[in-house]
Amino acid sequence: LAAEDKAKVNALLLALHDADVAALLENLSVEDRRDLVPLIRLEERPDVLAELDENVRDEVISQLSVAETAAAVASLETDDAVYVLETLDASEQRQVLASIPRLERLLLEEALSYPEDSAGRLMQRELIAVPNFWSVGETIDHLRYMHAQMPDRMPYAFHEIYVVDPGHRLEGSVSLDRLVCAAHAAPLASIMIRELRVLRTDTDQEEVAVLFRKRDLIAAPVVHDTSGRLVGVITIDDVVDVIDETYEDEIMHLGGVGADDLHRHTLATARARFTWLLVNLGTAVLASLVIGMFDATIEHMVALAVLMPIVASMGGNAGTQTLTVFVRALAMRELTTSNALRVIAKELLVGLINGGLFAVIAGGIAWLWFDSPFIAGIIGAAMIINLVVAALAGAIIPLVIERLRVDPAVASAVFVTTVTDVVGFFAFLGLASWFIR
Amino acid sequence: LAAEDKAKVNALLLALHDADVAALLENLSVEDRRDLVPLIRLEERPDVLAELDENVRDEVISQLSVAETAAAVASLETDDAVYVLETLDASEQRQVLASIPRLERLLLEEALSYPEDSAGRLMQRELIAVPNFWSVGETIDHLRYMHAQMPDRMPYAFHEIYVVDPGHRLEGSVSLDRLVCAAHAAPLASIMIRELRVLRTDTDQEEVAVLFRKRDLIAAPVVHDTSGRLVGVITIDDVVDVIDETYEDEIMHLGGVGADDLHRHTLATARARFTWLLVNLGTAVLASLVIGMFDATIEHMVALAVLMPIVASMGGNAGTQTLTVFVRALAMRELTTSNALRVIAKELLVGLINGGLFAVIAGGIAWLWFDSPFIAGIIGAAMIINLVVAALAGAIIPLVIERLRVDPAVASAVFVTTVTDVVGFFAFLGLASWFIR
Repeated sequence: LAAEDKAKVNALLLALHDADVAALLENLSVEDRRDLVPLIRLEERPDVLAELDENVRDEVISQLSVAETAAAVASLETDDAVYVLETLDASEQRQVLASIPRLERLLLEEALSYPEDSAGRLMQRELIAVPNFWSVGETIDHLRYMHAQMPDRMPYAFHEIYVVDPGHRLEGSVSLDRLVCAAHAAPLASIMIRELRVLRTDTDQEEVAVLFRKRDLIAAPVVHDTSGRLVGVITIDDVVDVIDETYEDEIMHLGGVGADDLHRHTLATARARFTWLLVNLGTAVLASLVIGMFDATIEHMVALAVLMPIVASMGGNAGTQTLTVFVRALAMRELTTSNALRVIAKELLVGLINGGLFAVIAGGIAWLWFDSPFIAGIIGAAMIINLVVAALAGAIIPLVIERLRVDPAVASAVFVTTVTDVVGFFAFLGLASWFIR
Repeated sequence: LAAEDKAKVNALLLALHDADVAALLENLSVEDRRDLVPLIRLEERPDVLAELDENVRDEVISQLSVAETAAAVASLETDDAVYVLETLDASEQRQVLASIPRLERLLLEEALSYPEDSAGRLMQRELIAVPNFWSVGETIDHLRYMHAQMPDRMPYAFHEIYVVDPGHRLEGSVSLDRLVCAAHAAPLASIMIRELRVLRTDTDQEEVAVLFRKRDLIAAPVVHDTSGRLVGVITIDDVVDVIDETYEDEIMHLGGVGADDLHRHTLATARARFTWLLVNLGTAVLASLVIGMFDATIEHMVALAVLMPIVASMGGNAGTQTLTVFVRALAMRELTTSNALRVIAKELLVGLINGGLFAVIAGGIAWLWFDSPFIAGIIGAAMIINLVVAALAGAIIPLVIERLRVDPAVASAVFVTTVTDVVGFFAFLGLASWFIR
């Protein structure tokens, strides 16, 4: 990216899709990014901003003037504009909003007044609503007229039109394929679909995603939570973003990192991960305390120290297996009160089966290694105990955490491995010391 | 679900959406499911089959006659029919195909001839293609005529129409919103969009998902990989299924379980998880061998046995953090040769920073606990070494595994924890024995 070749870079940028420009910016080093930003003219390509990772966007926006940012935000569709605005800090947000034309600003302020992660934040305000007494022909004529005369009052893309009463309350929706296939004179009311479950501005975004997935929707209207008026539309591309974000959160949280870790600065990353490692240090010390209870036994029989990580590690892995299945099932709402008991019973049985098998295998290894049937018996018994406890902990802990309205993906793993470490060391060393005495 | 209330159950089933019937079936016990299946009349509600989890679908299909299954499959859209067919075993598949009317059968056999996880498997054959010399008005008239006269030759839903030349080669696509907004007399060629990147029957499904996401598509045409003829269309709802499946695989594999674990039978679950636990036992024994090398040192200073899991566990967690970030970035194609080195350098720095901090904290704890500056120094040094090595392993191992064309989510975790266990025990006990000698 030599600074001289500005013309070349410009030509290249023009040929790239907005999403690719965003990906390019994300992959550059901080310095190269700083050089590239002025060349992109973001106020003319606002969608690049909406596609950027949050950390990178913060950096890019800090390079733009308030007026430039405001121009970019104002020319985005409302859903993308809200998405960019909600990550700015409060004073930046106020400054940018103040520089946006009044009508657009009011819409954005209203959107920002809906709760975070609600349908109200996700929806765009641009939609096609027509009166309930129109026919198919009138509607198509209206669309053609709007498109030719006032194209900037049309959504950038739309898949359905909405039929409303004089109070702008939603009566039904007509997908465009139904519209183009219907007879010219047919009244809209005869082909529209009345929604049984209408999204409200305060509906949770994950619930929106569940509905889209179940019904294979590509768009859905949103009504105001109190007035019942039609205020926006959520499209599938926004829902795909929600789906991506939800999975991203789950994977990253299960791995003990924040969702935006990759593009964070080094110090911010270290600080965020430190917290998780500190919690883990606490549980590791707890496990060490358990080992410390049996230091006399270990001194007496050092083979125990050699083998003890095996029991704990197998328990930890078995617990993580069960935990993963339960966290997933909870996220997909596949665990109900009617099947939870049956699934827990299955986990216990799986723990018992694999516990038994690994009791034999690990016992055999210990016997061969230390030529001691005593140690073989102890490790076998501890293995069964720990794998059954691991199954129980991996199943029950996420259920309890979900009940406490905390995300099981964040908090479960550390509790489960604490349980399997403590139980693993306690069972193995405790049984040994009890039999030796 | 009392058997007497069949009429009630029937009324209930009719009121439920296909996806909800499928969810209901999945949540029932094996026995209740067997009672419910005959009441659903799946040949009239084939979409229920397409929505079911693979294990449950196998079970349900085993209850149906070949004729019933064939009737259900034949009335599905081709993409869903292929989805159901590809999970049957080869002889079942042949039997069912033989009972399907010839035209439909040929389409399905062709679809099954495309590689697994390809666009050819994902696409539906039902689409609207029109000649390149038609106008908007002619197209709408054609759609109205088809809809009125031969509705079963129309796709169930469509969002775009495709413009083809006389050889049925794709020239462009027209989204329905462009179609309804355009003037009656406008030629299609003037409003169609020429696709720059056209999907082929052999395009990989994950690449399809990347394209849909980047371009916010709701449908995309697929051309035959050799003839270049337009053969199908992929819609966003199928892509959402691919996205779900990909994430599901990644999360489950990182957790050491198979993607369909929840609905598997107990024995099959135990067997699948056994493999993963066996690999883990191997690595645990390796770690034990390292400990065994230092048994004399441990006998001399039993505090080492008490503290040694702390170093290994912190390394394992730090390695998993880095690993998660790298597996994610690889899956999202956010790691390129241009930024990989920079991200690895960041990981090393994060490892060094947190290694230093936890050296002080763990050292302090060890000092207080055992009143020994020697042990404190050893655990501190081992902590720094292990957290830096964990960063390196967590970053490099998924990159290498990806290069070997194996899914990093499946295989990386076990290698990383092996490295951090071995290095953790070796650094801690090795340093101690070296200084004691």
